[in-house]
Amino acid sequence: MQYISVNPSDPSLRLLGRMDLSRRPLALDWTGSGLECSFRGSDLWAELEAPAASPAMWMIVLADGAPVARFPVEPGIRFYPLVLGMEPQNARTVTLMKETQCMPDQPESTVLLHSLRMKGALETLPVRSLKIEFVGDSLTSGEGSLAPRGNDEWISMWFSARGNYSWTACDALNAERRVLSQSGWGVCWDWEHNPDHTLTAHYEEICGVLRGPAAEARGCTKPYDFSAWQPDIVCIRLGTNDNNGMNMKNSAEQDRDTLVRGSLGLLRLVRKNNPAAKIVWILPASDCRPELPTEAVRLAREEGMSGLYTFTMPDYREEDMGARFHPNAEWNRKAGLLLADFLRTIL
Amino acid sequence: MQYISVNPSDPSLRLLGRMDLSRRPLALDWTGSGLECSFRGSDLWAELEAPAASPAMWMIVLADGAPVARFPVEPGIRFYPLVLGMEPQNARTVTLMKETQCMPDQPESTVLLHSLRMKGALETLPVRSLKIEFVGDSLTSGEGSLAPRGNDEWISMWFSARGNYSWTACDALNAERRVLSQSGWGVCWDWEHNPDHTLTAHYEEICGVLRGPAAEARGCTKPYDFSAWQPDIVCIRLGTNDNNGMNMKNSAEQDRDTLVRGSLGLLRLVRKNNPAAKIVWILPASDCRPELPTEAVRLAREEGMSGLYTFTMPDYREEDMGARFHPNAEWNRKAGLLLADFLRTIL
Amino acid sequence: MQYISVNPSDPSLRLLGRMDLSRRPLALDWTGSGLECSFRGSDLWAELEAPAASPAMWMIVLADGAPVARFPVEPGIRFYPLVLGMEPQNARTVTLMKETQCMPDQPESTVLLHSLRMKGALETLPVRSLKIEFVGDSLTSGEGSLAPRGNDEWISMWFSARGNYSWTACDALNAERRVLSQSGWGVCWDWEHNPDHTLTAHYEEICGVLRGPAAEARGCTKPYDFSAWQPDIVCIRLGTNDNNGMNMKNSAEQDRDTLVRGSLGLLRLVRKNNPAAKIVWILPASDCRPELPTEAVRLAREEGMSGLYTFTMPDYREEDMGARFHPNAEWNRKAGLLLADFLRTIL
Amino acid sequence: MQYISVNPSDPSLRLLGRMDLSRRPLALDWTGSGLECSFRGSDLWAELEAPAASPAMWMIVLADGAPVARFPVEPGIRFYPLVLGMEPQNARTVTLMKETQCMPDQPESTVLLHSLRMKGALETLPVRSLKIEFVGDSLTSGEGSLAPRGNDEWISMWFSARGNYSWTACDALNAERRVLSQSGWGVCWDWEHNPDHTLTAHYEEICGVLRGPAAEARGCTKPYDFSAWQPDIVCIRLGTNDNNGMNMKNSAEQDRDTLVRGSLGLLRLVRKNNPAAKIVWILPASDCRPELPTEAVRLAREEGMSGLYTFTMPDYREEDMGARFHPNAEWNRKAGLLLADFLRTIL
Repeated sequence: MQYISVNPSDPSLRLLGRMDLSRRPLALDWTGSGLECSFRGSDLWAELEAPAASPAMWMIVLADGAPVARFPVEPGIRFYPLVLGMEPQNARTVTLMKETQCMPDQPESTVLLHSLRMKGALETLPVRSLKIEFVGDSLTSGEGSLAPRGNDEWISMWFSARGNYSWTACDALNAERRVLSQSGWGVCWDWEHNPDHTLTAHYEEICGVLRGPAAEARGCTKPYDFSAWQPDIVCIRLGTNDNNGMNMKNSAEQDRDTLVRGSLGLLRLVRKNNPAAKIVWILPASDCRPELPTEAVRLAREEGMSGLYTFTMPDYREEDMGARFHPNAEWNRKAGLLLADFLRTIL
Repeated sequence: MQYISVNPSDPSLRLLGRMDLSRRPLALDWTGSGLECSFRGSDLWAELEAPAASPAMWMIVLADGAPVARFPVEPGIRFYPLVLGMEPQNARTVTLMKETQCMPDQPESTVLLHSLRMKGALETLPVRSLKIEFVGDSLTSGEGSLAPRGNDEWISMWFSARGNYSWTACDALNAERRVLSQSGWGVCWDWEHNPDHTLTAHYEEICGVLRGPAAEARGCTKPYDFSAWQPDIVCIRLGTNDNNGMNMKNSAEQDRDTLVRGSLGLLRLVRKNNPAAKIVWILPASDCRPELPTEAVRLAREEGMSGLYTFTMPDYREEDMGARFHPNAEWNRKAGLLLADFLRTIL
Repeated sequence: MQYISVNPSDPSLRLLGRMDLSRRPLALDWTGSGLECSFRGSDLWAELEAPAASPAMWMIVLADGAPVARFPVEPGIRFYPLVLGMEPQNARTVTLMKETQCMPDQPESTVLLHSLRMKGALETLPVRSLKIEFVGDSLTSGEGSLAPRGNDEWISMWFSARGNYSWTACDALNAERRVLSQSGWGVCWDWEHNPDHTLTAHYEEICGVLRGPAAEARGCTKPYDFSAWQPDIVCIRLGTNDNNGMNMKNSAEQDRDTLVRGSLGLLRLVRKNNPAAKIVWILPASDCRPELPTEAVRLAREEGMSGLYTFTMPDYREEDMGARFHPNAEWNRKAGLLLADFLRTIL
Repeated sequence: MQYISVNPSDPSLRLLGRMDLSRRPLALDWTGSGLECSFRGSDLWAELEAPAASPAMWMIVLADGAPVARFPVEPGIRFYPLVLGMEPQNARTVTLMKETQCMPDQPESTVLLHSLRMKGALETLPVRSLKIEFVGDSLTSGEGSLAPRGNDEWISMWFSARGNYSWTACDALNAERRVLSQSGWGVCWDWEHNPDHTLTAHYEEICGVLRGPAAEARGCTKPYDFSAWQPDIVCIRLGTNDNNGMNMKNSAEQDRDTLVRGSLGLLRLVRKNNPAAKIVWILPASDCRPELPTEAVRLAREEGMSGLYTFTMPDYREEDMGARFHPNAEWNRKAGLLLADFLRTIL
């Protein structure tokens, strides 16, 4: 049995997602955060800890991309089996990642990643061809994507980083992914028009949507070091909640320009921190004023910004639904393949 | 927190699969065995135990039919979370079942089901419309169905009772399922022409493919009580390994009639124990001599047996493969829908 | 395997110590709190949970009074073995109790008692002959009593509810015990002369030395129901820290009368709530002004209060020391036997 | 958090007891086997595994010689806390050892020692002044020593390697201890006069009293390497069961000489393998024919063997009893101090 403390400087580990690399144990906050390794051996466990029992944070495990395990992390430090009984002839890529987004109302809830235990050894990890960052809301958090149709629960169990268009696109492109996404939040305000809840405000922090002592202690509010991981592509899928907030407040006329300027501001912010990346705005659905981010992209081009694109997802219908009118995993899979096809054209 | 010892006489539990009901704790041996309940509350755990560390037996958890958790059971008695953080307004059907077939070479490996712990309560479980029994081999054990394409590992992690045509068919028909299946085994002999390895010989036992002291102690070799659970349909998907065994031994000419008579014998055995059931022989692929079980069905009809059918699965191709030339979960899903369509026509 | 949710109305369980009986799970806060049962069978486990990792709360298990297990409770809900492999011919009294006092600086740290699991059954529990309540400070919390001589650590691991004079006295008298004790605290102030830290102020609450949201949520600050458990004897072992506080502040002259009046007030408070109990003041050591509580007892008698006694413990010397100048378990055992001898004379 | 695989070549670990050092994980079979380290830090855990649930093997943990934890190891691999919340100013010697003897009737039951986890670090371990080996029976296994008086259970929970005269003697002399002991066994036969059950026959093996596939797989039957650990003293406390066997068979007259010769043979065997050690025969009680081993010692001296001693333990009486007429821990403590006094005189 071998033991490896999870350490960012270990070249045999690929840490997935934004996190404070100076902290031990590492904290997995954003959806899709975790680690990846090339494992030759039979059994591999990860030692995980949930500091809070609720909301439960769910993990998924993939072996060469095929999902094999999914489970919530519970309080206490314990070794969770990732793969068991594999054959040691070939190394397999094992991916462990958080299925659940972070929860700003319960910032103490997270997953701590202590160590790996294995019968076997880690090998050199094949590099990924691309790096893609996603900035989004519930649609990018995979909210409800695992739920049976018609389910009405807003619960962590239904969220999925893997039953998610962003995962499928990255899988198809052999890309490494980082995700910043928060259900209900937007560019300028959230679905209730609360201007404190925006991805824009926290784009330059490690995981700034989480505040308070517990989040600060694990480095969430620290500046994020963009230089260490420069994406080839940044996909922004925002605007749906801005639109919902305007509808709720019945303020579309007066807010329209604010939202366009805010979206332009977000584009500038992303460009500033990722000078060489392609930036793709994945537009809100046709009934969610896609013309507003489109206009922001136009204005950005006028300012001389290049490498900007928009992309339109197919609509999802009654039969594509998971929980609470969010698309299910199968719709996400198809949408991810379409996105991958598009991204191939701009590379 | 409520605790319920798992007890076959508890009307709020539906025990899935053949098992020795007189034993405590109950042992889950056949693939797909487990339990189902209607749970209203937030959190539900099952107390499970694996008497042997290897081969690992994997479990899956469904909430209203949607898979949420999958994990191996490890040595020691422990509560494993099934669902966490659900909303208590509506009861949900929670299904816990073994993904992995039993392993005749390691009969001490099983999953023991001790108790349930919950924040919430069990309610009356909706009845299923139908009961279907499946008798098969690796294709019914879902061997390799979860593996990435091209994988060459014969390991328990890739087996799936849910990524399985039989599950999809039952799900589509709202049917309760029982499965007897064993990789490599057949009607008259196994893929190496060993006549000791047949489903026929053990059809009347609880789980007679497992032998030895550990298996006997948990009742595997006891006679099965057919009267307690009379299926509406019995699907036999056998013949592939009988064919492989003949090919390996180059004995097709001399074995052909033996296999037809053996298949007829299996039909009589199934009919004797399930007098009112429709019996469907799901034929081996076109290159696996489907004409032999077809001939057995014809002879059985000549004898006056009625309610007999054959069904042909679509072929699976390169892109449908999981591990070791077995079809993957997506192919199984499609095949299961086709089977459900067929079964609707004979009811 | 049997499961029993821990429930105060269950006549087969004796809950030890003050706790909020309306809460589920029950919280063990005071040192010595826990449960006791008469167990006939082989194996018995308790399902425990520590909401906070630190300071660790240690538990001890006794079988017919003989200590067999001692362990800290860690975060997460888990079954801890109490006794294993006993012979079922005879029922044995199993006692589970917290070794560690509550910690006012970390009020979220406690032990939650969920359920019992057993191979066997509970029987009628023999009644205890007496009930004795102890009110004290570190000397009654068993601070340092398990440490090797000369140890200088103030840590939870060295505290002991069982390596404690109060336990030995109760064991010798077949008495049930309840303990209120807090290291450093006194009648009128603590060892630093802080008047907020007194047992007097919280005598009428369930566990009022713990404050704050976590403590309130588990009922610590609620009034204690004296009627439900009327002790035969109340032993007060306080005054040491009052003395130390006066020394530290060099205020003995001006504080002397305040302390006598305060001690008188505590006697009145104890008498009011326990009208029929004998009250024994176990005096501070000879260099800690034992004359002051003695004077309070005299005044109380003048007021007409009866059933009042004082008792003098033997001194402890260099060779009796555990950690930080507190007596070790062996000294406690001898002192407890002396106390038991005395208590027999007043019954 | 640091992780250390338990490895015999690690100079910061002292492995206690005979075990197969080529095996991973190490197996703890003999009573008193375990490890010792000098730990500076707050928290230390050991990752342990019991391959069999029954009989339960109990462990004890000492911090600077003071017992703090005792617990059984259960099936499954898990980290068990040894010490928690210590202060890191001073390193403390932490000792983990098995309280329970090995059980020849259940040779698959053992404790596997995988790794250590710690908040802190290991330091150089102070050397012990002496090495002492004990060869004995139930009296050296501490059978019943933890039980309440009058208890009649022969169960693993009451055994103790620490509530044991051999521990106390070694503690007093700052000696490292190795123990070979087996309840009921003797020099020439066991308490039922079965000649297959002797410590003599297995003295040159690692733990040869355990046989069968499980024991062989962990190296129990391999030759023991005496050169790696040469004791300063070997204490033999045998003869009680030989005497009981003769009584049972009523064969004292004919067996007397056989036993004397057998005892002489054991002395030669011990001397051969430990040429420089003092050898002390701790004689059976006065009603157990202590004259027979005394005669063997005399004969050995006649042969020219030197460095031989006999020692007489005090009798134990009604009030010294634990379970099944075996002396309790307090008697063992006193007897151990007497033995230490004696051993000082011969060094």
